Amino acid sequence: MKKQQFVVVGLGRFGSSLAKELIALGYEVLGIDKNDEVVQEMSQVLTHVVVADCTDEEALRSLGIRNFDCGVVAIGDDIQASIMSAILLKDSGMKKVVAKALSELHGRVLEKVGVDQVVYPERDMGIRVANQLVSPNLLDYIELSKDYTIAEMAVPKRLNGKSLQDIDLRVRFGCSVVAINKPQGVIIAPSASDVLTEKDVIVVIGTNGQIEEFEKEVIR
Amino acid sequence: MKKQQFVVVGLGRFGSSLAKELIALGYEVLGIDKNDEVVQEMSQVLTHVVVADCTDEEALRSLGIRNFDCGVVAIGDDIQASIMSAILLKDSGMKKVVAKALSELHGRVLEKVGVDQVVYPERDMGIRVANQLVSPNLLDYIELSKDYTIAEMAVPKRLNGKSLQDIDLRVRFGCSVVAINKPQGVIIAPSASDVLTEKDVIVVIGTNGQIEEFEKEVIR
Amino acid sequence: MKKQQFVVVGLGRFGSSLAKELIALGYEVLGIDKNDEVVQEMSQVLTHVVVADCTDEEALRSLGIRNFDCGVVAIGDDIQASIMSAILLKDSGMKKVVAKALSELHGRVLEKVGVDQVVYPERDMGIRVANQLVSPNLLDYIELSKDYTIAEMAVPKRLNGKSLQDIDLRVRFGCSVVAINKPQGVIIAPSASDVLTEKDVIVVIGTNGQIEEFEKEVIR
Amino acid sequence: MKKQQFVVVGLGRFGSSLAKELIALGYEVLGIDKNDEVVQEMSQVLTHVVVADCTDEEALRSLGIRNFDCGVVAIGDDIQASIMSAILLKDSGMKKVVAKALSELHGRVLEKVGVDQVVYPERDMGIRVANQLVSPNLLDYIELSKDYTIAEMAVPKRLNGKSLQDIDLRVRFGCSVVAINKPQGVIIAPSASDVLTEKDVIVVIGTNGQIEEFEKEVIR
Amino acid sequence: MKKQQFVVVGLGRFGSSLAKELIALGYEVLGIDKNDEVVQEMSQVLTHVVVADCTDEEALRSLGIRNFDCGVVAIGDDIQASIMSAILLKDSGMKKVVAKALSELHGRVLEKVGVDQVVYPERDMGIRVANQLVSPNLLDYIELSKDYTIAEMAVPKRLNGKSLQDIDLRVRFGCSVVAINKPQGVIIAPSASDVLTEKDVIVVIGTNGQIEEFEKEVIR
Amino acid sequence: MKKQQFVVVGLGRFGSSLAKELIALGYEVLGIDKNDEVVQEMSQVLTHVVVADCTDEEALRSLGIRNFDCGVVAIGDDIQASIMSAILLKDSGMKKVVAKALSELHGRVLEKVGVDQVVYPERDMGIRVANQLVSPNLLDYIELSKDYTIAEMAVPKRLNGKSLQDIDLRVRFGCSVVAINKPQGVIIAPSASDVLTEKDVIVVIGTNGQIEEFEKEVIR
Amino acid sequence: MKKQQFVVVGLGRFGSSLAKELIALGYEVLGIDKNDEVVQEMSQVLTHVVVADCTDEEALRSLGIRNFDCGVVAIGDDIQASIMSAILLKDSGMKKVVAKALSELHGRVLEKVGVDQVVYPERDMGIRVANQLVSPNLLDYIELSKDYTIAEMAVPKRLNGKSLQDIDLRVRFGCSVVAINKPQGVIIAPSASDVLTEKDVIVVIGTNGQIEEFEKEVIR
Amino acid sequence: MKKQQFVVVGLGRFGSSLAKELIALGYEVLGIDKNDEVVQEMSQVLTHVVVADCTDEEALRSLGIRNFDCGVVAIGDDIQASIMSAILLKDSGMKKVVAKALSELHGRVLEKVGVDQVVYPERDMGIRVANQLVSPNLLDYIELSKDYTIAEMAVPKRLNGKSLQDIDLRVRFGCSVVAINKPQGVIIAPSASDVLTEKDVIVVIGTNGQIEEFEKEVIR
Repeated sequence: MKKQQFVVVGLGRFGSSLAKELIALGYEVLGIDKNDEVVQEMSQVLTHVVVADCTDEEALRSLGIRNFDCGVVAIGDDIQASIMSAILLKDSGMKKVVAKALSELHGRVLEKVGVDQVVYPERDMGIRVANQLVSPNLLDYIELSKDYTIAEMAVPKRLNGKSLQDIDLRVRFGCSVVAINKPQGVIIAPSASDVLTEKDVIVVIGTNGQIEEFEKEVIR
Repeated sequence: MKKQQFVVVGLGRFGSSLAKELIALGYEVLGIDKNDEVVQEMSQVLTHVVVADCTDEEALRSLGIRNFDCGVVAIGDDIQASIMSAILLKDSGMKKVVAKALSELHGRVLEKVGVDQVVYPERDMGIRVANQLVSPNLLDYIELSKDYTIAEMAVPKRLNGKSLQDIDLRVRFGCSVVAINKPQGVIIAPSASDVLTEKDVIVVIGTNGQIEEFEKEVIR
Repeated sequence: MKKQQFVVVGLGRFGSSLAKELIALGYEVLGIDKNDEVVQEMSQVLTHVVVADCTDEEALRSLGIRNFDCGVVAIGDDIQASIMSAILLKDSGMKKVVAKALSELHGRVLEKVGVDQVVYPERDMGIRVANQLVSPNLLDYIELSKDYTIAEMAVPKRLNGKSLQDIDLRVRFGCSVVAINKPQGVIIAPSASDVLTEKDVIVVIGTNGQIEEFEKEVIR
Repeated sequence: MKKQQFVVVGLGRFGSSLAKELIALGYEVLGIDKNDEVVQEMSQVLTHVVVADCTDEEALRSLGIRNFDCGVVAIGDDIQASIMSAILLKDSGMKKVVAKALSELHGRVLEKVGVDQVVYPERDMGIRVANQLVSPNLLDYIELSKDYTIAEMAVPKRLNGKSLQDIDLRVRFGCSVVAINKPQGVIIAPSASDVLTEKDVIVVIGTNGQIEEFEKEVIR
Repeated sequence: MKKQQFVVVGLGRFGSSLAKELIALGYEVLGIDKNDEVVQEMSQVLTHVVVADCTDEEALRSLGIRNFDCGVVAIGDDIQASIMSAILLKDSGMKKVVAKALSELHGRVLEKVGVDQVVYPERDMGIRVANQLVSPNLLDYIELSKDYTIAEMAVPKRLNGKSLQDIDLRVRFGCSVVAINKPQGVIIAPSASDVLTEKDVIVVIGTNGQIEEFEKEVIR
Repeated sequence: MKKQQFVVVGLGRFGSSLAKELIALGYEVLGIDKNDEVVQEMSQVLTHVVVADCTDEEALRSLGIRNFDCGVVAIGDDIQASIMSAILLKDSGMKKVVAKALSELHGRVLEKVGVDQVVYPERDMGIRVANQLVSPNLLDYIELSKDYTIAEMAVPKRLNGKSLQDIDLRVRFGCSVVAINKPQGVIIAPSASDVLTEKDVIVVIGTNGQIEEFEKEVIR
Repeated sequence: MKKQQFVVVGLGRFGSSLAKELIALGYEVLGIDKNDEVVQEMSQVLTHVVVADCTDEEALRSLGIRNFDCGVVAIGDDIQASIMSAILLKDSGMKKVVAKALSELHGRVLEKVGVDQVVYPERDMGIRVANQLVSPNLLDYIELSKDYTIAEMAVPKRLNGKSLQDIDLRVRFGCSVVAINKPQGVIIAPSASDVLTEKDVIVVIGTNGQIEEFEKEVIR
Repeated sequence: MKKQQFVVVGLGRFGSSLAKELIALGYEVLGIDKNDEVVQEMSQVLTHVVVADCTDEEALRSLGIRNFDCGVVAIGDDIQASIMSAILLKDSGMKKVVAKALSELHGRVLEKVGVDQVVYPERDMGIRVANQLVSPNLLDYIELSKDYTIAEMAVPKRLNGKSLQDIDLRVRFGCSVVAINKPQGVIIAPSASDVLTEKDVIVVIGTNGQIEEFEKEVIR
């Protein structure tokens, strides 16, 4: 199976970070930006990178844009250019177009013109950082459903030397430990006798209420 | 225990999203922005919101800034104001100051002037979206360690009606299913006989290589 | 039957001329522009006229926009505002939304976001003036089909005193005179004996080729 | 007879559309614009196209401007340049100069400096679109005199299968059908037995009042 | 006979100096400028002075502009406003309109739109100062015809105590002394025995060549 | 005697007009302007013309500025550059420096820094035009002293065929006719029997009051 | 004797620091700045402070400027305003006017227009800091004459416990110690037996060469 | 011992003056500025001078910045660039970094990011000039301690011919004369019989109060 090829339009902070990650994951990426300096800077990182106006249909065609599998419109602050580029990528026959929106209204326009997935980096990161702030030992989390969450938490000093049995979190809070990340390695599906130390990180699964309660009572 | 009180400096997309989430989580938030319109718009959402220049020490003092537990410098594009605000929040005696950085160098300055945590929203979201793009069924993930990942994946059509035993991913790929999110509810630590359907979402734990292999062979 | 009510967004040259004509035709018109001076100037002409930002959904709602039958987005040069306004008018539930496009690509976006009719004033007038330039006696015309045209032409000095029979244009060119506009009044379906004078205007129907030939040989 | 040669000054939306139509009609056109990019874009469409400042008499002379038959000043928004260019074209000895005006006052200046015909594209299109909006089945129209109009109308569903006799519009409204444009072809001077179908377009001649009444009662 | 009333549009250096001189000469002057500060500054000097946009016909009418005898368009650098104001003053029915031109082309437009007299202050003063520079003792001059000049010259030290007879300029150069301005008073039509002193100023009439020769040989 | 050589700094309307006149009078002129286009335009007119920053002492020295006899600072609107240039020209050892002032205060600075003659073109032309406006037949004038003026006046229709004796202006007004400029030639010191015709121009000398009275009663 | 009264024009970093020091020294200071915010900020520090344009003679007069003894023109970056203010202060009859110059040429203009003392803060501090950089133990110095300097130097660790006799700097370097500043107090004209400790600061007088040699050999 | 090598970042008035003095003192200096013209101007003065962006870590590295002993950040008005450059110089491993601060807050940031010495040129010169203004005969001074000052004073006319004994300043004011700078040379530690003349400059040491008293009573 041939590897997917990506076009990233707009190489600002979001776009360039995304493009670099795609390269790191082993994919080919064509980066496009109208700014000469930005392009020069990225030229040693990406597969191909060109200076072009992505609202100019002719320019996109001459880049063979329709041969790419997926396009990402990561244009910074110019909503008009973002919409124009998105429609041109979509109309070129590209299978999937993802675009970054600056506001809810911008997102609605992008969906109307056919963008497959709209992302809101600043908004989403705002939510994520807010959650980490209120529970500093909460390192990361996945919202599994409206009710269930998987949370990655730092083991606080207080629990040093306690076994999972000692904490007894299944009984007290109803949630279970899925894994313990220790300096020596990851223990998947740990047993009740496994002992926590301060440097450990535990992964817990449970309802939002259970996890919140556990975090408040034990972890914070 | 008294609830933490937050100050958010800069109410752009990242700052306002963060502030709103803190409110939604039940905390008190003082929002500050130098832009009159932005403040007006947020006045119905946040606990308090004021127009002020956050590089003016006198102004911050008169807002009683040092009584807050945590400050977030979420200033958009003005690096100088970001640094000035950060140092003033930190020098006011605030316990924790988090600041958003626009570049790696900006981040270094913020750390030098004493900021406790530096966040890079655009960069981090770029990486996150890149990962989702290359594995469209990968919904979210937590990097547990340099080697281990917990991944949330959509069950593809192909696996409809298959049991975990049928897939045999522990033997074939070495990774294990931690939970299945089904429309009817979440199954934690599912048994081998649990059957997958197209709408399900599974949570898998394993090394990066195992998860990648599994994603490529089975899920994609 | 209740008369239609119109909203015109953007009161530049095109929008204000359109709004004034609607008033002259006996309809109610709400004019909206973000420019204070423009609104002041139109306040004595239109039914209602307000200063508002048409890309602000809340503002539009408070104006009761969804009670209007038809909206015209006549925004001058700001493509982004044009698209945003169009989507907001359409999403408000308005039956018909017409929008002015500045370019072909702009027009495509407007259609994608659901605009019912896209107009290109400058482009269309360019075409119309070009046709009048090459045949100065051609006053106006309707393109009936790809092949047929109805043309309104000034009678040149040379034909002074000639009857339709003298000109014999049905036989020589294949087209027919539908009406003669004389200072004394309009003759509909004129007879062969009707005589032309220099001040007259004739309306001719025929294929494009017939009309062109007639124009070249007889009228010009 | 030698074909007319045209100069179009200002290749914005109006000017370029006009110039292209002249080319399509078979005439030679020299396009002039002070903007390098605009000129490049039009270079494959027009006979000749140059970058020049049209308020520089010397520049115009070196282009041999006085050998052209007709000049069109289609300058977008710079009223001063529009006036200066118009006077220079006129003073070069050109037989006919047409200029686009942005306002009534601008139009008066253009006439004073000797422009032969002043056009107001945005104003005229505003009026035209307003008329189409209030009678959606009215496709186009020619104002024959202060009282008489020729109107092109779409046949509504309701009239499907009706003959002209059935509608009896001569008796009921006083106006007559000049032509019917059917998918199969145009019927000029149709007979009373000709039957209408939904896709047809009819051309009607009558007084404004008759046409309006007919449009309201039968067509709308 | 009623005294003339003047309107001066544009109160920059030229306009304000002209307006002040008219006041000093005993006339009534209405000064108009769009700049608030300029108007304030002139309010103690002129009869009336108002802030107004002189390209707004309505504004001019409400000032009763047509009751004035003469209008001066002294607008600084805005050629468009200069032309617009000139046409509005002229169309208001004012008997005489004078306007300042910035360039030869600007002057041509002003004449075409009906301005009665066009003045070029900077150009004319450039010429005048140039003449004074090359003959420093030439104080002022009137060009009587293409050939004849009346020149006002300072008597150089060298001529101290010389009578007109001594200089004998009628014979040597062909020109005559019309007047001598002495500290004690002006001698009109001086006699040959009148003696010059260093502080005197003489007025000489003659052909350009005679005056130039005289200036070079005797005065310089 | 070697001809004077001039430097003109600033080639705007005043400077370029002055420089051209000096050339026309037969002198050598070095023109300096910081604007590339202006210099190009003047390069075919002046002896030498260079692009230079006249506030850069080194640049002036390398142009050999101190070898010129007279410098004119004709800089348009940049008061700082005007002062800087003036002081550099003066300090270079140039015998005479003339500078144009934009305001009275500007003029005072120029005098303080050693400028030999300060000119106010706009102010002086304002005064001159004001005088011509109030007496339209007054063509030009020289202010001989505080009291005496020499005036050049057009002969009005009314005086057609009248001799100087008929007008008797010496007795009635106390002023005398110095010359009559007739189409056939100039009559210097005309006799009482010389007859005026409408096309003639007379030169009159007298006190301001006499001339004004004469102008009001006879000429206007 | 009445205390001097000062006017400080321009309250930027230099001007405000100077004004504050004058207040600290017990003098009355009127501060003037055209910037509203700056004035507000200084209003609690200075005797009087007003918003005014210091190039407006009328404004200065109404402030009673001529009653002040000394004026300081401390205007930041606007050379024109600096020159204009200086001339107005000087012409008001003020006894002493000091002005800050941005460049050598600016300084020359200030002197020409009569400023009594011109200061170059940035240039002088550059020189001062350079000297401290190359001899880090050199704290401050006074240039007594072209040859002699008084220098204040920190005693380096190495000299800890040494008496002046031990160092013998009069014999070895030819310079003498004028004072020793010890934590306990200042010893004026110290004797040879006085012992140095690391925290001491010595004041040395000598020729530049002697001091330099001493600094290199002993202090650095 | 190898001579120190300096980098000066920012070659404005302060930076260039500092750099030139370092060169004059015999050191090697690399000057860096982002402005092309500034660099060109300094290229004949400094050892090396380059155009570079000092907030670009890569650029600094390629200049071999870490081989220099001391860096001076003398950036004019761009606080952000000042902070960025300072951190990069410091992180490069440079032993000493000195930076100019525009405000107290700016200074605090510079100290936080590790700058070794912060200088405030405008503030310090403001203080210095204020002191000279209130005592015009005070030429310069060194603040030896909180209490003691060494002052350099011009001898006023009044003291002409007086010996130190006559003035008796040790007894009357408690301070002593350290040196007298006479046109013939400097007298160090003068004797009581040394006589002062008007051109002399004396150096006095004493407490602030003593010096002030002496200055008021005797010198002023």
